[in-house]
Amino acid sequence: MDRKGILFVLSGPSGAGKGTVLKEVLQRVNGLAVSVSVTTRSPRPGEIDGVHYHFRTKDEFKQMVKNNEFLEHVSKFQNYYGTPKAHVEKLLNDGMDVILEIETKGAAKVRRANPDAVYIFITPSNYEELTRRLSCRGTESPEVCELRLKIAKTEYKSIKYYDYIAINDNLEECVNTVLSIIHAERNKRIRNQKLAENLIQLK
Amino acid sequence: MDRKGILFVLSGPSGAGKGTVLKEVLQRVNGLAVSVSVTTRSPRPGEIDGVHYHFRTKDEFKQMVKNNEFLEHVSKFQNYYGTPKAHVEKLLNDGMDVILEIETKGAAKVRRANPDAVYIFITPSNYEELTRRLSCRGTESPEVCELRLKIAKTEYKSIKYYDYIAINDNLEECVNTVLSIIHAERNKRIRNQKLAENLIQLK
Repeated sequence: MDRKGILFVLSGPSGAGKGTVLKEVLQRVNGLAVSVSVTTRSPRPGEIDGVHYHFRTKDEFKQMVKNNEFLEHVSKFQNYYGTPKAHVEKLLNDGMDVILEIETKGAAKVRRANPDAVYIFITPSNYEELTRRLSCRGTESPEVCELRLKIAKTEYKSIKYYDYIAINDNLEECVNTVLSIIHAERNKRIRNQKLAENLIQLK
Repeated sequence: MDRKGILFVLSGPSGAGKGTVLKEVLQRVNGLAVSVSVTTRSPRPGEIDGVHYHFRTKDEFKQMVKNNEFLEHVSKFQNYYGTPKAHVEKLLNDGMDVILEIETKGAAKVRRANPDAVYIFITPSNYEELTRRLSCRGTESPEVCELRLKIAKTEYKSIKYYDYIAINDNLEECVNTVLSIIHAERNKRIRNQKLAENLIQLK
Protein backbone atom coordinates (compact mmCIF):
# COMPACT_ATOMS: atom_id res chain seq x y z
CA MET A 1 0.00 0.00 0.00
CA ASP A 2 1.34 3.39 -0.99
CA ARG A 3 -0.32 5.55 1.62
CA LYS A 4 -2.83 5.60 4.46
CA GLY A 5 -6.29 6.88 3.54
CA ILE A 6 -7.34 10.45 4.29
CA LEU A 7 -10.19 11.14 6.71
CA PHE A 8 -12.46 13.98 5.56
CA VAL A 9 -14.92 15.48 8.05
CA LEU A 10 -17.89 17.40 6.67
CA SER A 11 -19.62 19.48 9.32
CA GLY A 12 -21.42 22.76 9.93
CA PRO A 13 -24.69 24.01 11.43
CA SER A 14 -28.08 22.43 10.85
CA GLY A 15 -29.57 23.91 7.72
CA ALA A 16 -26.22 24.17 5.94
CA GLY A 17 -27.03 21.29 3.62
CA LYS A 18 -24.24 18.89 4.63
CA GLY A 19 -26.23 15.77 3.72
CA THR A 20 -27.19 16.96 0.24
CA VAL A 21 -23.61 18.05 -0.49
CA LEU A 22 -22.24 14.68 0.68
CA LYS A 23 -24.67 12.74 -1.50
CA GLU A 24 -23.56 14.64 -4.62
CA VAL A 25 -19.86 14.40 -3.73
CA LEU A 26 -20.05 10.61 -3.32
CA GLN A 27 -21.53 10.26 -6.80
CA ARG A 28 -18.68 12.14 -8.42
CA VAL A 29 -15.49 10.91 -6.80
CA ASN A 30 -13.65 7.57 -6.73
CA GLY A 31 -11.94 5.90 -3.81
CA LEU A 32 -14.00 7.63 -1.16
CA ALA A 33 -16.00 5.60 1.37
CA VAL A 34 -18.69 7.00 3.59
CA SER A 35 -18.96 5.85 7.16
CA VAL A 36 -22.37 4.43 8.08
CA SER A 37 -23.46 5.79 11.48
CA VAL A 38 -24.97 3.84 14.34
CA THR A 39 -28.27 5.21 15.67
CA THR A 40 -30.90 4.38 18.26
CA ARG A 41 -33.72 6.06 16.35
CA SER A 42 -36.28 3.95 14.46
CA PRO A 43 -35.77 3.32 10.75
CA ARG A 44 -37.83 5.57 8.49
CA PRO A 45 -39.68 3.98 5.56
CA GLY A 46 -37.15 2.70 3.03
CA GLU A 47 -34.14 2.89 5.35
CA ILE A 48 -32.04 -0.29 5.38
CA ASP A 49 -29.98 -1.47 8.37
CA GLY A 50 -26.28 -1.34 7.46
CA VAL A 51 -26.87 0.93 4.46
CA HIS A 52 -28.43 4.15 5.76
CA TYR A 53 -27.68 3.47 9.43
CA HIS A 54 -26.77 0.65 11.74
CA PHE A 55 -29.94 0.55 13.86
CA ARG A 56 -29.29 -0.44 17.48
CA THR A 57 -31.20 -0.35 20.78
CA LYS A 58 -30.23 2.16 23.45
CA ASP A 59 -28.75 -0.63 25.56
CA GLU A 60 -26.64 -1.88 22.65
CA PHE A 61 -25.51 1.67 21.97
CA LYS A 62 -24.52 2.28 25.59
CA GLN A 63 -22.52 -0.95 25.56
CA MET A 64 -20.66 0.24 22.43
CA VAL A 65 -19.87 3.53 24.20
CA LYS A 66 -18.52 1.58 27.19
CA ASN A 67 -16.37 -0.54 24.86
CA ASN A 68 -14.93 2.64 23.33
CA GLU A 69 -16.20 1.61 19.90
CA PHE A 70 -17.01 5.13 18.69
CA LEU A 71 -14.91 7.75 16.98
CA GLU A 72 -17.58 10.22 18.14
CA HIS A 73 -21.14 9.99 19.41
CA VAL A 74 -23.80 12.56 20.23
CA SER A 75 -27.36 12.63 21.43
CA LYS A 76 -30.00 14.52 19.45
CA PHE A 77 -33.76 14.65 20.05
CA GLN A 78 -33.49 11.87 22.64
CA ASN A 79 -31.66 9.52 20.30
CA TYR A 80 -27.99 8.62 20.02
CA TYR A 81 -25.84 8.78 16.93
CA GLY A 82 -22.27 7.51 16.63
CA THR A 83 -19.48 6.80 14.14
CA PRO A 84 -18.07 3.28 14.58
CA LYS A 85 -14.29 3.46 15.00
CA ALA A 86 -13.06 0.02 13.86
CA HIS A 87 -14.62 0.20 10.40
CA VAL A 88 -13.28 3.68 9.66
CA GLU A 89 -9.80 2.74 10.84
CA LYS A 90 -9.74 -0.42 8.74
CA LEU A 91 -10.68 1.53 5.61
CA LEU A 92 -8.00 4.16 6.29
CA ASN A 93 -5.34 1.51 6.94
CA ASP A 94 -6.29 -0.16 3.65
CA GLY A 95 -5.52 3.13 1.90
CA MET A 96 -9.15 4.09 1.29
CA ASP A 97 -10.22 7.71 1.92
CA VAL A 98 -13.23 8.08 4.22
CA ILE A 99 -15.71 10.92 4.63
CA LEU A 100 -17.88 11.57 7.70
CA GLU A 101 -20.87 13.91 7.81
CA ILE A 102 -21.33 14.84 11.45
CA GLU A 103 -22.44 17.59 13.83
CA THR A 104 -19.89 20.16 14.99
CA LYS A 105 -19.84 18.65 18.50
CA GLY A 106 -18.96 15.24 17.08
CA ALA A 107 -16.35 16.84 14.81
CA ALA A 108 -14.67 18.34 17.88
CA LYS A 109 -14.33 14.86 19.36
CA VAL A 110 -12.96 13.39 16.13
CA ARG A 111 -10.45 16.24 15.93
CA ARG A 112 -8.89 15.45 19.29
CA ALA A 113 -8.12 11.89 18.16
CA ASN A 114 -7.43 12.68 14.48
CA PRO A 115 -5.63 16.00 14.02
CA ASP A 116 -4.42 14.85 10.56
CA ALA A 117 -7.94 14.60 9.18
CA VAL A 118 -9.30 17.32 6.87
CA TYR A 119 -12.05 19.44 8.44
CA ILE A 120 -14.54 21.16 6.13
CA PHE A 121 -17.18 23.58 7.44
CA ILE A 122 -20.29 23.82 5.24
CA THR A 123 -22.35 26.99 5.63
CA PRO A 124 -24.47 29.47 3.72
CA SER A 125 -22.62 32.77 3.34
CA ASN A 126 -25.02 34.83 5.42
CA TYR A 127 -27.52 34.96 8.24
CA GLU A 128 -30.60 35.58 6.11
CA GLU A 129 -30.07 32.39 4.16
CA LEU A 130 -29.55 30.37 7.34
CA THR A 131 -32.75 31.69 8.99
CA ARG A 132 -34.64 30.93 5.78
CA ARG A 133 -33.38 27.33 5.80
CA LEU A 134 -34.11 26.88 9.48
CA SER A 135 -37.72 27.74 8.65
CA CYS A 136 -37.75 31.01 10.53
CA ARG A 137 -40.14 32.69 8.16
CA GLY A 138 -43.30 32.05 10.05
CA THR A 139 -43.73 28.37 9.20
CA GLU A 140 -42.71 27.34 12.71
CA SER A 141 -43.24 28.84 16.14
CA PRO A 142 -40.95 31.74 17.12
CA GLU A 143 -39.67 29.65 20.04
CA VAL A 144 -38.51 26.78 17.82
CA CYS A 145 -36.90 29.23 15.43
CA GLU A 146 -35.10 31.02 18.27
CA LEU A 147 -33.78 27.73 19.63
CA ARG A 148 -32.50 26.58 16.26
CA LEU A 149 -30.68 29.86 15.63
CA LYS A 150 -29.20 29.75 19.13
CA ILE A 151 -27.79 26.29 18.47
CA ALA A 152 -26.45 27.43 15.07
CA LYS A 153 -24.61 30.32 16.74
CA THR A 154 -22.88 27.90 19.09
CA GLU A 155 -21.95 25.74 16.11
CA TYR A 156 -20.40 28.70 14.27
CA LYS A 157 -18.03 29.30 17.17
CA SER A 158 -16.19 26.11 16.23
CA ILE A 159 -15.41 27.40 12.73
CA LYS A 160 -11.93 28.43 13.83
CA TYR A 161 -10.92 24.77 14.13
CA TYR A 162 -11.71 23.95 10.50
CA ASP A 163 -9.23 23.72 7.62
CA TYR A 164 -11.69 24.84 4.96
CA ILE A 165 -14.93 26.81 4.64
CA ALA A 166 -17.17 25.60 1.81
CA ILE A 167 -19.92 28.14 1.14
CA ASN A 168 -23.22 26.50 0.25
CA ASP A 169 -25.38 29.20 -1.32
CA ASN A 170 -25.43 27.20 -4.54
CA LEU A 171 -25.30 23.39 -4.32
CA GLU A 172 -23.29 22.87 -7.51
CA GLU A 173 -20.61 25.36 -6.44
CA CYS A 174 -20.37 23.89 -2.95
CA VAL A 175 -20.03 20.35 -4.33
CA ASN A 176 -17.24 21.56 -6.63
CA THR A 177 -15.47 23.18 -3.69
CA VAL A 178 -15.56 19.96 -1.68
CA LEU A 179 -14.42 17.92 -4.70
CA SER A 180 -11.50 20.34 -5.19
CA ILE A 181 -10.52 20.05 -1.54
CA ILE A 182 -10.51 16.23 -1.80
CA HIS A 183 -8.48 16.35 -5.04
CA ALA A 184 -5.98 18.87 -3.64
CA GLU A 185 -5.51 17.07 -0.32
CA ARG A 186 -4.80 13.83 -2.19
CA ASN A 187 -1.97 15.62 -3.98
CA LYS A 188 -0.33 17.08 -0.88
CA ARG A 189 3.34 16.22 -0.75
CA ILE A 190 3.18 15.08 2.88
CA ARG A 191 0.50 12.56 1.91
CA ASN A 192 2.68 11.17 -0.90
CA GLN A 193 6.04 10.69 0.78
CA LYS A 194 6.75 7.41 -1.03
CA LEU A 195 6.17 9.02 -4.42
CA ALA A 196 8.42 11.94 -3.44
CA GLU A 197 11.17 9.57 -2.32
CA ASN A 198 10.94 7.54 -5.51
CA LEU A 199 11.30 10.72 -7.56
CA ILE A 200 14.32 11.88 -5.58
CA GLN A 201 16.02 8.54 -6.05
CA LEU A 202 15.64 8.46 -9.84
CA LYS A 203 18.31 6.07 -11.08
CA MET B 1 -10.64 44.42 0.47
CA ASP B 2 -11.57 41.11 1.99
CA ARG B 3 -8.26 39.32 1.76
CA LYS B 4 -4.71 39.49 0.42
CA GLY B 5 -4.10 37.56 -2.80
CA ILE B 6 -2.53 34.11 -2.76
CA LEU B 7 0.84 33.54 -4.43
CA PHE B 8 1.03 30.22 -6.30
CA VAL B 9 4.44 28.94 -7.41
CA LEU B 10 4.53 26.36 -10.20
CA SER B 11 7.90 24.65 -10.46
CA GLY B 12 9.60 21.35 -11.24
CA PRO B 13 12.34 19.97 -13.47
CA SER B 14 12.83 20.88 -17.11
CA GLY B 15 10.71 18.58 -19.23
CA ALA B 16 7.90 18.45 -16.66
CA GLY B 17 5.64 20.62 -18.80
CA LYS B 18 5.20 23.57 -16.40
CA GLY B 19 4.65 26.10 -19.19
CA THR B 20 1.96 24.07 -20.96
CA VAL B 21 0.14 23.39 -17.69
CA LEU B 22 0.22 27.09 -16.76
CA LYS B 23 -1.16 28.15 -20.14
CA GLU B 24 -4.17 25.83 -19.74
CA VAL B 25 -4.74 26.78 -16.10
CA LEU B 26 -4.84 30.50 -16.95
CA GLN B 27 -7.55 29.90 -19.55
CA ARG B 28 -9.81 28.15 -17.06
CA VAL B 29 -9.67 30.15 -13.84
CA ASN B 30 -10.77 33.65 -12.83
CA GLY B 31 -8.96 36.12 -10.63
CA LEU B 32 -5.51 34.71 -11.30
CA ALA B 33 -2.75 36.92 -12.72
CA VAL B 34 0.49 35.64 -14.16
CA SER B 35 3.70 37.47 -13.47
CA VAL B 36 5.59 38.53 -16.60
CA SER B 37 9.30 37.77 -16.19
CA VAL B 38 12.21 40.03 -17.06
CA THR B 39 14.84 38.49 -19.37
CA THR B 40 18.05 39.45 -21.12
CA ARG B 41 17.57 37.01 -23.98
CA SER B 42 16.44 38.26 -27.39
CA PRO B 43 12.75 38.16 -28.27
CA ARG B 44 11.76 35.20 -30.44
CA PRO B 45 9.50 35.84 -33.45
CA GLY B 46 6.06 36.93 -32.22
CA GLU B 47 7.12 37.68 -28.64
CA ILE B 48 5.95 41.07 -27.40
CA ASP B 49 7.77 43.15 -24.79
CA GLY B 50 5.62 43.38 -21.66
CA VAL B 51 3.40 40.48 -22.69
CA HIS B 52 5.61 37.40 -22.98
CA TYR B 53 8.62 38.94 -21.23
CA HIS B 54 10.00 42.29 -20.25
CA PHE B 55 13.10 42.37 -22.50
CA ARG B 56 16.05 44.17 -20.92
CA THR B 57 19.79 44.51 -21.58
CA LYS B 58 22.26 42.80 -19.27
CA ASP B 59 23.25 46.16 -17.82
CA GLU B 60 19.64 47.07 -17.11
CA PHE B 61 19.11 43.65 -15.52
CA LYS B 62 22.17 44.00 -13.29
CA GLN B 63 20.95 47.39 -12.15
CA MET B 64 17.57 45.86 -11.21
CA VAL B 65 19.37 43.18 -9.19
CA LYS B 66 21.35 45.90 -7.40
CA ASN B 67 18.12 47.78 -6.64
CA ASN B 68 16.65 44.58 -5.12
CA GLU B 69 13.81 44.66 -7.65
CA PHE B 70 13.49 40.87 -8.03
CA LEU B 71 11.54 38.29 -6.09
CA GLU B 72 13.94 35.76 -7.63
CA HIS B 73 16.37 35.72 -10.54
CA VAL B 74 18.48 33.03 -12.17
CA SER B 75 20.89 32.68 -15.05
CA LYS B 76 20.30 30.05 -17.71
CA PHE B 77 22.22 29.49 -20.94
CA GLN B 78 24.12 32.77 -20.45
CA ASN B 79 20.96 34.81 -20.04
CA TYR B 80 19.23 36.16 -16.95
CA TYR B 81 15.63 35.67 -15.94
CA GLY B 82 13.86 37.38 -13.04
CA THR B 83 10.46 37.95 -11.42
CA PRO B 84 9.83 41.65 -10.75
CA LYS B 85 8.87 42.10 -7.11
CA ALA B 86 6.86 45.35 -7.07
CA HIS B 87 4.28 44.22 -9.63
CA VAL B 88 3.61 40.91 -7.87
CA GLU B 89 3.27 42.58 -4.48
CA LYS B 90 0.88 45.19 -5.81
CA LEU B 91 -1.38 42.51 -7.28
CA LEU B 92 -1.35 40.52 -4.03
CA ASN B 93 -2.11 43.61 -1.94
CA ASP B 94 -5.02 44.38 -4.28
CA GLY B 95 -6.45 40.95 -3.43
CA MET B 96 -5.53 39.36 -6.77
CA ASP B 97 -4.05 35.85 -6.77
CA VAL B 98 -0.78 35.52 -8.68
CA ILE B 99 0.91 32.50 -10.24
CA LEU B 100 4.62 32.20 -11.07
CA GLU B 101 6.16 29.54 -13.30
CA ILE B 102 9.81 29.34 -12.32
CA GLU B 103 12.81 27.01 -11.97
CA THR B 104 13.31 25.15 -8.69
CA LYS B 105 16.31 27.36 -7.82
CA GLY B 106 14.17 30.48 -8.19
CA ALA B 107 11.38 28.85 -6.20
CA ALA B 108 13.79 28.28 -3.31
CA LYS B 109 14.54 32.01 -3.27
CA VAL B 110 10.85 32.94 -3.37
CA ARG B 111 10.17 30.51 -0.54
CA ARG B 112 12.57 32.21 1.84
CA ALA B 113 10.73 35.53 1.41
CA ASN B 114 7.21 34.08 1.01
CA PRO B 115 6.62 31.05 3.21
CA ASP B 116 2.83 31.60 2.93
CA ALA B 117 2.80 31.04 -0.81
CA VAL B 118 1.56 27.73 -2.26
CA TYR B 119 4.31 25.62 -3.82
CA ILE B 120 3.34 23.10 -6.51
CA PHE B 121 5.87 20.67 -7.97
CA ILE B 122 5.01 19.50 -11.51
CA THR B 123 6.58 16.22 -12.60
CA PRO B 124 5.97 13.12 -14.69
CA SER B 125 5.42 10.11 -12.40
CA ASN B 126 8.51 8.20 -13.49
CA TYR B 127 12.04 8.29 -14.81
CA GLU B 128 11.31 6.80 -18.23
CA GLU B 129 8.84 9.56 -19.05
CA LEU B 130 11.28 12.26 -17.95
CA THR B 131 14.15 10.87 -20.06
CA ARG B 132 11.80 10.65 -23.02
CA ARG B 133 10.82 14.31 -22.63
CA LEU B 134 14.39 15.42 -22.17
CA SER B 135 15.09 13.92 -25.61
CA CYS B 136 17.27 11.12 -24.30
CA ARG B 137 16.22 8.68 -26.97
CA GLY B 138 19.04 9.28 -29.42
CA THR B 139 17.85 12.60 -30.80
CA GLU B 140 20.57 14.49 -28.92
CA SER B 141 24.13 13.65 -27.95
CA PRO B 142 24.57 11.36 -24.91
CA GLU B 143 26.52 14.17 -23.19
CA VAL B 144 23.65 16.67 -23.46
CA CYS B 145 21.20 14.01 -22.24
CA GLU B 146 23.43 13.13 -19.28
CA LEU B 147 23.74 16.79 -18.30
CA ARG B 148 19.99 17.38 -18.48
CA LEU B 149 19.24 14.35 -16.32
CA LYS B 150 21.91 15.38 -13.83
CA ILE B 151 20.27 18.81 -13.48
CA ALA B 152 16.84 17.18 -13.14
CA LYS B 153 18.12 15.00 -10.29
CA THR B 154 19.30 18.09 -8.43
CA GLU B 155 15.90 19.69 -9.02
CA TYR B 156 14.07 16.67 -7.58
CA LYS B 157 15.97 17.05 -4.32
CA SER B 158 13.95 20.21 -3.61
CA ILE B 159 10.63 18.34 -3.80
CA LYS B 160 10.52 18.09 -0.01
CA TYR B 161 9.91 21.83 0.24
CA TYR B 162 6.73 21.75 -1.86
CA ASP B 163 3.14 21.70 -0.59
CA TYR B 164 1.76 19.70 -3.50
CA ILE B 165 2.96 17.28 -6.17
CA ALA B 166 1.00 17.52 -9.43
CA ILE B 167 1.75 14.49 -11.63
CA ASN B 168 1.88 15.43 -15.30
CA ASP B 169 1.63 12.17 -17.26
CA ASN B 170 -1.59 13.42 -18.79
CA LEU B 171 -1.98 17.16 -19.41
CA GLU B 172 -5.72 17.30 -18.71
CA GLU B 173 -5.36 15.50 -15.38
CA CYS B 174 -2.47 17.69 -14.30
CA VAL B 175 -4.36 20.88 -15.20
CA ASN B 176 -7.32 19.63 -13.15
CA THR B 177 -5.04 18.93 -10.21
CA VAL B 178 -3.63 22.46 -10.30
CA LEU B 179 -7.12 23.96 -10.68
CA SER B 180 -8.29 21.95 -7.66
CA ILE B 181 -5.33 23.15 -5.61
CA ILE B 182 -6.15 26.78 -6.48
CA HIS B 183 -9.84 26.27 -5.66
CA ALA B 184 -9.10 24.48 -2.37
CA GLU B 185 -6.49 27.02 -1.21
CA ARG B 186 -8.94 29.85 -1.87
CA ASN B 187 -11.36 28.16 0.52
CA LYS B 188 -8.89 27.63 3.36
CA ARG B 189 -10.24 29.02 6.59
CA ILE B 190 -7.00 30.85 7.41
CA ARG B 191 -7.28 32.72 4.10
CA ASN B 192 -10.87 33.79 4.88
CA GLN B 193 -10.64 35.09 8.41
CA LYS B 194 -13.02 37.96 7.77
CA LEU B 195 -15.69 35.61 6.46
CA ALA B 196 -15.19 33.33 9.47
CA GLU B 197 -15.50 36.27 11.87
CA ASN B 198 -18.67 37.50 10.17
CA LEU B 199 -20.21 34.05 10.50
CA ILE B 200 -19.32 33.78 14.19
CA GLN B 201 -20.87 37.18 14.88
CA LEU B 202 -24.23 36.41 13.25
CA LYS B 203 -26.71 38.80 14.79
